[in-house]
Amino acid sequence: MRPMLGLTFDPASADASAASVTLVGGGPGDPELITVAGLKALFSADVVLVDHLGPVDLLSELPDHIEVIDVATHPHGKTTPQERINELLIEHARAGKRVVRLKGGDGFVFGRGFEELVALNEAGISVRVIPGLTSPVSVPALAGIPVTNRGVVHEFTVVSGHVPPGHPTSLIEWDALARLRGTLVLLMAVKNAQAIAESLIAGGRAASTPVAVTTDGSLPTQRTVRTTLGELGEAIETHAIRPPAIIVIGEVAGLGV
Amino acid sequence: MRPMLGLTFDPASADASAASVTLVGGGPGDPELITVAGLKALFSADVVLVDHLGPVDLLSELPDHIEVIDVATHPHGKTTPQERINELLIEHARAGKRVVRLKGGDGFVFGRGFEELVALNEAGISVRVIPGLTSPVSVPALAGIPVTNRGVVHEFTVVSGHVPPGHPTSLIEWDALARLRGTLVLLMAVKNAQAIAESLIAGGRAASTPVAVTTDGSLPTQRTVRTTLGELGEAIETHAIRPPAIIVIGEVAGLGV
Repeated sequence: MRPMLGLTFDPASADASAASVTLVGGGPGDPELITVAGLKALFSADVVLVDHLGPVDLLSELPDHIEVIDVATHPHGKTTPQERINELLIEHARAGKRVVRLKGGDGFVFGRGFEELVALNEAGISVRVIPGLTSPVSVPALAGIPVTNRGVVHEFTVVSGHVPPGHPTSLIEWDALARLRGTLVLLMAVKNAQAIAESLIAGGRAASTPVAVTTDGSLPTQRTVRTTLGELGEAIETHAIRPPAIIVIGEVAGLGV
Repeated sequence: MRPMLGLTFDPASADASAASVTLVGGGPGDPELITVAGLKALFSADVVLVDHLGPVDLLSELPDHIEVIDVATHPHGKTTPQERINELLIEHARAGKRVVRLKGGDGFVFGRGFEELVALNEAGISVRVIPGLTSPVSVPALAGIPVTNRGVVHEFTVVSGHVPPGHPTSLIEWDALARLRGTLVLLMAVKNAQAIAESLIAGGRAASTPVAVTTDGSLPTQRTVRTTLGELGEAIETHAIRPPAIIVIGEVAGLGV
């Protein structure tokens, strides 16, 4: 068997009782930041369903006999609907294939992995979940920023910023979040960063609170911009920050080496 | 080279520009839940400093030429002080060894990894950080519980419960936490679970809020107990729950398949 990431797999070590479908979290992007279990599941798969997040470079390492289905791209240029992804997983599992669903990060952190787990379970198909490195923790770590720090910060909150504060579909109590003293990590928040910063400051968080914004986490192009909560919106403009970015707010964002 | 976890390493794929010290997060315990990068760093090490958390079974797979230093055990039965661990890392790195510091979970989530990074940096020693699967996200996932869920929960908070609410050294605003509607994940909280539950209920969180407690996450002995916030303390007694445990509070704790 040809090596993958410089590692050769002994098929005898594969799990004979493997589930029909394995939901694999692929981590933030660097192919080596997948777990060993995740890599083995890929090695052993017949079919892999992927989108365009996470360790896309792994796909070129897959042996030729493995069928790769890109569910991010659709004949008409749209993303494949979640229902269709669920159907594909079920169809291939029922055809007796070993199916891997590869996602970026962890499939259960803003990843819709749970919806796939439920659909497969309802279809009577056995599923194994292999977690992945989730970006709100792993990307700051790669930038040298700890989300907790002994004696300083004993808590962190991870929030999706895809909807601004005050929006009718928002599920977030921004005023309560503003009263926490710990680390706040925003995902999918580049567009709404200014509105979120204003809301947090209005809720009592100091405008001088350190902020670190890391883009392209784990990739060779990884970059971190340091700013403050009061200047976050301006920093995003000035540094032309584009998604995907991880925004760390709190004392720890002023640390790093 | 002999295989590790059924994988054989091609030394040619090792990073020639490797840092002197690599801080490796080992994940929750299952040896295959370490990252590929972490495994490769272990393969390539001269010296590995370990404690008794995370993937301890990996140590028996290490080739004989790798020196393993147990910094959890001390001649007098005490844990090695952090300052001494820092010194050992620096000493071995200065002796030209490739040093790996292996920790459970992620070294930057309640792991004191940042203190080691700072000490090494001050000593002028190059460091690479390899994140690990952090238990507050990965253990619920392994129990089939997503910390976020589309349209239901768009935020989660991870809190250390090693100090009860109201304690003079507490850094946590429990009343603000109680006002959040998202998922709350408690670590190191078995002893204080009853006090924390009372505090959250007093702050407005419903006593009927679902709770899931998972012990021995990722190991063959993994077990999940379902209860409610109002009955958490009693459930911990009844089910004789002992640390390490991950306590998930919120709507998602009532999900799972």
